[in-house]
Amino acid sequence: MGFHVASETGRLRRVILHRPDLELKRLTPSNKDALLFDDVLWVRRARQEHDGFADVLRDRGVEVHLFGDLLREALDVPAARTLVLDRVFDEKAYGPLATPTLRAAFETMTAADLVSALVGGMTKREYLEQHPEPTSVRFHAMELDDFLLGPLPNHLFTRDTSAWIYDGVSINAMRWPARQRETVHFEAIYRHHPLFAGEQGGAFHHWSEGQSDYPSTIEGGDVLVIGNGAVLIGMSERTTPQAVEMLAHKLFAAGSARSIVALDMPKRRAFMHLDTVMTMVDGDTFTQYAGLGMLPSYTIEPGVGERELKVTDHPPEHMHRAIAAALGLDAIRVLTAVQDVHSAEREQWDDGCNVLAVEPGVVIAYERNATTNTYLRKEGIEVIEIRGSELGRGRGGPRCMSCPVERDAVN
Amino acid sequence: MGFHVASETGRLRRVILHRPDLELKRLTPSNKDALLFDDVLWVRRARQEHDGFADVLRDRGVEVHLFGDLLREALDVPAARTLVLDRVFDEKAYGPLATPTLRAAFETMTAADLVSALVGGMTKREYLEQHPEPTSVRFHAMELDDFLLGPLPNHLFTRDTSAWIYDGVSINAMRWPARQRETVHFEAIYRHHPLFAGEQGGAFHHWSEGQSDYPSTIEGGDVLVIGNGAVLIGMSERTTPQAVEMLAHKLFAAGSARSIVALDMPKRRAFMHLDTVMTMVDGDTFTQYAGLGMLPSYTIEPGVGERELKVTDHPPEHMHRAIAAALGLDAIRVLTAVQDVHSAEREQWDDGCNVLAVEPGVVIAYERNATTNTYLRKEGIEVIEIRGSELGRGRGGPRCMSCPVERDAVN
Amino acid sequence: MGFHVASETGRLRRVILHRPDLELKRLTPSNKDALLFDDVLWVRRARQEHDGFADVLRDRGVEVHLFGDLLREALDVPAARTLVLDRVFDEKAYGPLATPTLRAAFETMTAADLVSALVGGMTKREYLEQHPEPTSVRFHAMELDDFLLGPLPNHLFTRDTSAWIYDGVSINAMRWPARQRETVHFEAIYRHHPLFAGEQGGAFHHWSEGQSDYPSTIEGGDVLVIGNGAVLIGMSERTTPQAVEMLAHKLFAAGSARSIVALDMPKRRAFMHLDTVMTMVDGDTFTQYAGLGMLPSYTIEPGVGERELKVTDHPPEHMHRAIAAALGLDAIRVLTAVQDVHSAEREQWDDGCNVLAVEPGVVIAYERNATTNTYLRKEGIEVIEIRGSELGRGRGGPRCMSCPVERDAVN
Amino acid sequence: MGFHVASETGRLRRVILHRPDLELKRLTPSNKDALLFDDVLWVRRARQEHDGFADVLRDRGVEVHLFGDLLREALDVPAARTLVLDRVFDEKAYGPLATPTLRAAFETMTAADLVSALVGGMTKREYLEQHPEPTSVRFHAMELDDFLLGPLPNHLFTRDTSAWIYDGVSINAMRWPARQRETVHFEAIYRHHPLFAGEQGGAFHHWSEGQSDYPSTIEGGDVLVIGNGAVLIGMSERTTPQAVEMLAHKLFAAGSARSIVALDMPKRRAFMHLDTVMTMVDGDTFTQYAGLGMLPSYTIEPGVGERELKVTDHPPEHMHRAIAAALGLDAIRVLTAVQDVHSAEREQWDDGCNVLAVEPGVVIAYERNATTNTYLRKEGIEVIEIRGSELGRGRGGPRCMSCPVERDAVN
Repeated sequence: MGFHVASETGRLRRVILHRPDLELKRLTPSNKDALLFDDVLWVRRARQEHDGFADVLRDRGVEVHLFGDLLREALDVPAARTLVLDRVFDEKAYGPLATPTLRAAFETMTAADLVSALVGGMTKREYLEQHPEPTSVRFHAMELDDFLLGPLPNHLFTRDTSAWIYDGVSINAMRWPARQRETVHFEAIYRHHPLFAGEQGGAFHHWSEGQSDYPSTIEGGDVLVIGNGAVLIGMSERTTPQAVEMLAHKLFAAGSARSIVALDMPKRRAFMHLDTVMTMVDGDTFTQYAGLGMLPSYTIEPGVGERELKVTDHPPEHMHRAIAAALGLDAIRVLTAVQDVHSAEREQWDDGCNVLAVEPGVVIAYERNATTNTYLRKEGIEVIEIRGSELGRGRGGPRCMSCPVERDAVN
Repeated sequence: MGFHVASETGRLRRVILHRPDLELKRLTPSNKDALLFDDVLWVRRARQEHDGFADVLRDRGVEVHLFGDLLREALDVPAARTLVLDRVFDEKAYGPLATPTLRAAFETMTAADLVSALVGGMTKREYLEQHPEPTSVRFHAMELDDFLLGPLPNHLFTRDTSAWIYDGVSINAMRWPARQRETVHFEAIYRHHPLFAGEQGGAFHHWSEGQSDYPSTIEGGDVLVIGNGAVLIGMSERTTPQAVEMLAHKLFAAGSARSIVALDMPKRRAFMHLDTVMTMVDGDTFTQYAGLGMLPSYTIEPGVGERELKVTDHPPEHMHRAIAAALGLDAIRVLTAVQDVHSAEREQWDDGCNVLAVEPGVVIAYERNATTNTYLRKEGIEVIEIRGSELGRGRGGPRCMSCPVERDAVN
Repeated sequence: MGFHVASETGRLRRVILHRPDLELKRLTPSNKDALLFDDVLWVRRARQEHDGFADVLRDRGVEVHLFGDLLREALDVPAARTLVLDRVFDEKAYGPLATPTLRAAFETMTAADLVSALVGGMTKREYLEQHPEPTSVRFHAMELDDFLLGPLPNHLFTRDTSAWIYDGVSINAMRWPARQRETVHFEAIYRHHPLFAGEQGGAFHHWSEGQSDYPSTIEGGDVLVIGNGAVLIGMSERTTPQAVEMLAHKLFAAGSARSIVALDMPKRRAFMHLDTVMTMVDGDTFTQYAGLGMLPSYTIEPGVGERELKVTDHPPEHMHRAIAAALGLDAIRVLTAVQDVHSAEREQWDDGCNVLAVEPGVVIAYERNATTNTYLRKEGIEVIEIRGSELGRGRGGPRCMSCPVERDAVN
Repeated sequence: MGFHVASETGRLRRVILHRPDLELKRLTPSNKDALLFDDVLWVRRARQEHDGFADVLRDRGVEVHLFGDLLREALDVPAARTLVLDRVFDEKAYGPLATPTLRAAFETMTAADLVSALVGGMTKREYLEQHPEPTSVRFHAMELDDFLLGPLPNHLFTRDTSAWIYDGVSINAMRWPARQRETVHFEAIYRHHPLFAGEQGGAFHHWSEGQSDYPSTIEGGDVLVIGNGAVLIGMSERTTPQAVEMLAHKLFAAGSARSIVALDMPKRRAFMHLDTVMTMVDGDTFTQYAGLGMLPSYTIEPGVGERELKVTDHPPEHMHRAIAAALGLDAIRVLTAVQDVHSAEREQWDDGCNVLAVEPGVVIAYERNATTNTYLRKEGIEVIEIRGSELGRGRGGPRCMSCPVERDAVN
């Protein structure tokens, strides 16, 4: 059987999560902004909460792959190790003097230690506890507690770095430096890990070229595989129109999708990804943040010639209509809890809309978004609540923290 | 018996806390910075955590007064109600047209409703649900969801607005606009609430003049009643040297204290109050944040003449010596957990040092500060842990959230 | 003859300017933001440019009073000196220990030295070159190059601190700390300088109570005396609705004005004062920044009872109509040069709209705003250009830098 | 004869300047920060000031090449045009739909129009005045006044983008996006313009690979060719240690230099480039900003093996000694005007140290830095003053605005 994601809410069968570890302990009040976090997390508790999330998924019959395991197993494959170390230890980053020495030092690590360093980062001090100091201006000019290798705390959000769209995966060029090193890890996994590379992995498409696509960036939080051969994409601060065009070419050429609806989102951090303001809870039903409003949208379809696309633009008031049309429906159902503007803003901030469906009409949500959860239940949606006092500080909910690799269509 | 705080770590007998309520629900991503919060809180959970904190205190035999109750009871006293409404409904704030109308509308409220509005704030929309719109440019120019009366979420930190120092209380002029309306509430309580105003309250000194002292500001988080007639004060972003001088005059004139040690703190938000980086855990023992370092200090004592003070300044390296001298000791014991700079910064951010002693050697701390708590235990301190996933988002720990009104000396 | 300002564009007879001096030399890259400046100025050149501005006014028959001279002469009057020093040397600012000493040291200064210190500021180092160090924590805790007395570089903008409106003056409560000490200087001048206090000064009204009106703030840059008993006021970041109401009461009670049109401006620094986006160039003609758009407005007139006002609100599209009605005209003429949005934004930034009329149809403007100036000329306005390469860095033009104290009506 | 820069203060023979044009008119208060400017400039006056600067150079016998002319002439060479357009019109930036259309539209432009668009930028509106709208989500989603091609106002600072070091040129990878497109223009010039590519250009080395070296960035403002085969480089916010190492390899391999002294500068905008705080005024004499202090430094020399370097690090107090040693001198002379910290900060901000020598002991400086200029004169340096009221708003002085391509050694 293969990897394939046919919808947002069909039965979820397999998913990649990342269990919080060293990389989150690296967050401090001083570095959190550069690392795209609003607050530091209590990692021990965050891990318990995350374990709870994984357990809920397993209880529902979802197979959970942990990113750390996948990367470790991939790094046992020499080609994967070479791919990653070549990308990380670049003379342009570490200088001609230190680079060969550093590269050699990391080359000898066990796969487990390498995962720990690549994801959790390593300070100059930690490096020097194991190795002599290389002759290098680049190395010497660092402070002892500076990061020789920066931590990647946003690996928590496995949704963004790679995104499965029907019978292929987009390994994404990420918008901000704090996440760009994440991409090569997924390249190593999808290209070399036995699960994906071997026979059992089966054939699947690659919709992208990884970080080398930059500045044509796209992040999975902006990509909703809404079904019926359609994809809904938010063009946000992090997802560019050119990436949407490139993806359209590949999806249409492979015959894997028939239309993309692209939304012109506000380019603000509060609307970081489309899935922080709008997700699906059933085959024809969305939950949407009251403050999002209606947005200009574009329907993109195959054009006449091979490299051509047909682009139809819609005024803001037709946003829902354009989505319905792509789904082959007369209308979609949009659920927005009634509450005052201050409360609505609070719940959006706490990922009230960022739910993960495990089957049609059944979603996982943070317990803290009581108003939204109650409202969804009244509208017939089953809401499974998970704890997220710590996890939620990263400004990402259940959808952000999961990368489905196998999900059925809704029928 | 009377109100009196003789130390930082002697047996704690009575304390004022504030149970989280409407005011914290008002926090949003948009207004949190102006309201001095780094994140929004899940109030239902925060209240559970706070109830847990109060229960721990009660279990230890501490009588807990809730600020909301005290204010409500005070506002049943006409003079207190007049004091507060006169201060809040000022023509310079609301204009000559709207002020009498607004004042009249609030005058008729029950004490409970008044507490809710004064502490939790009120939007223009909420006001108009109950009352007609006054003819007023000031009122008319507001948006419907603007606050007619701003919320006071920092009432959570009862430590700061008033501070008991030996046999008197300092009702403080607060540094930032977001907290300045808190002060009049404590004036109403200490001057008119039966608990303090009646015979049972007994005599106590007032060390300050409330918000009218501004810009001579001082906040209780910077004030440690270290015992032996000594007070340790951090001169911070919020506590000014002139306020320290004024307090010295009053304390010495009353014979209530013999010396003040003033520390010249960095004027940064990270070092908001002295008790976020240094508190007492026993009669001669402090816990101190590794990143604080040593600070210049001043010992202030009574001078020869009536309005004179003797000021002795010490270089940074003598900071601990100056504190010891004020305590009449040869040396103090300072506990700082050994951890890397990033971890130390994280725990300080999470109020690792902000512990509240209930008796000598027994302190209440957030459970999340595992490294610091473990270290204190190894050093013989009993640490009672409380949950604070939500409470801690306000950047304040057990000491910040408590205002002792009766505490024994350490003997 | 008396002081009276009857219009924005009638013949200008007397004006107060402030010649750049020490206070502007105090600006540095580090302190400029707190002092409300966007850049540092080359003071020698700024002074030459300012002399050029004063010369143009004198050439046009306008009598120029220099603020520095007025303040110096006022400080020769003991009551004025007492007023100013009492206000500046407050125990709440300098502490009980240092205040009497500092006050005594400044008391002995010549009026000229006092002006230099009050306006130009004084560092701790400069104080210590003349006087011994007082025993004071407040004083001791300062760095040598810290300002004991902050400089007041915004005195350059004499328009704001006091504003003549028909037969009286409003000495204003200023919005930001960097300007609040300016107010007492004008109180000293208008109350005690022989020019205003003596017989020749004649009777005039005081429309305000100085800085004690705070937080009911108003600044002269938001006040246009448009004539016909009408006043146009921008409610901005710095001018509050409550101040407008208070002013209305006073103007109407004295019979000095018949209506106020208040504009609800965006509360942004770019639209700092109304006169940075809209000024008058003739009796019925305004120049307006293209990016201002149309604003909601209120017409305020005397009500039936003594303390009552009649308030009529207008939708944005009626803004010009409301102004015309207050002027008793069918319509006003609004001049806005046609240029692309980037260029328009540039010229507004460079005070393209901030012109000062010396008589109807004759205005003084910065030479750098070539597009706007050319456009005004084509529309029949005479534009006298002055240099402002340095002056303009303060984000204020000819109107901001002038306080008319005598100006005819337009007939 | 060939291109060669042998020193900082030897007779200057040829230089590249850039005359202010459209690109500076594009600056607005809204976009200036992203474009690395602190203020907008009055371009007409800035151009006059710049013409004055060029005239002073010509009067001193320096041949002035204007960058705009060089680029225009280069773009007449088909290979240069292809190089530039290939780099600018990348599918990853403009999307697969619009890129071929845009590329074709620019391909047909005259060289002069192309220079105007490449350097001055082009808005979507301007493009549409000449061409039909392409079918493209990327293009369609832009606002009319958005820049299709961003302006490059920092071309004014020809010092940074390329830097001649002895007998070769480093075409630099620039640190910030606002300047990265500048690099390809200099690649086109140095590789294809007849002046450099033809026989008369003679042979010279290329010390770098252009923007493809990123993130190994280096900018000319940090590079001082101090003579005696030595180079002084500031490792700043914009110049990385790895770039220094790479440059060292190339310079030493070619035998063009014998040592590099690298300074570990504070990574702050105020110390943007080394030449904003320290430049040479004579063969052994520097002018240095008082606030710079002494910095840690490294002497880099050829190592034993081919790819090896010898690195010697010096404590801060040996900074001047390390520079002297590289020059083969016992000591260097460092001139720093005595003034208070506020004034010193002002003059550094106004490029007081950023002087350009035309021969030993003769420098060009802004007239506004009166204190520094007077001081240099007293120390025997001839200072030629130029006006810079507008030019100086870009935070760059005579050295920043000039790229010497031929300069003698000091003997």
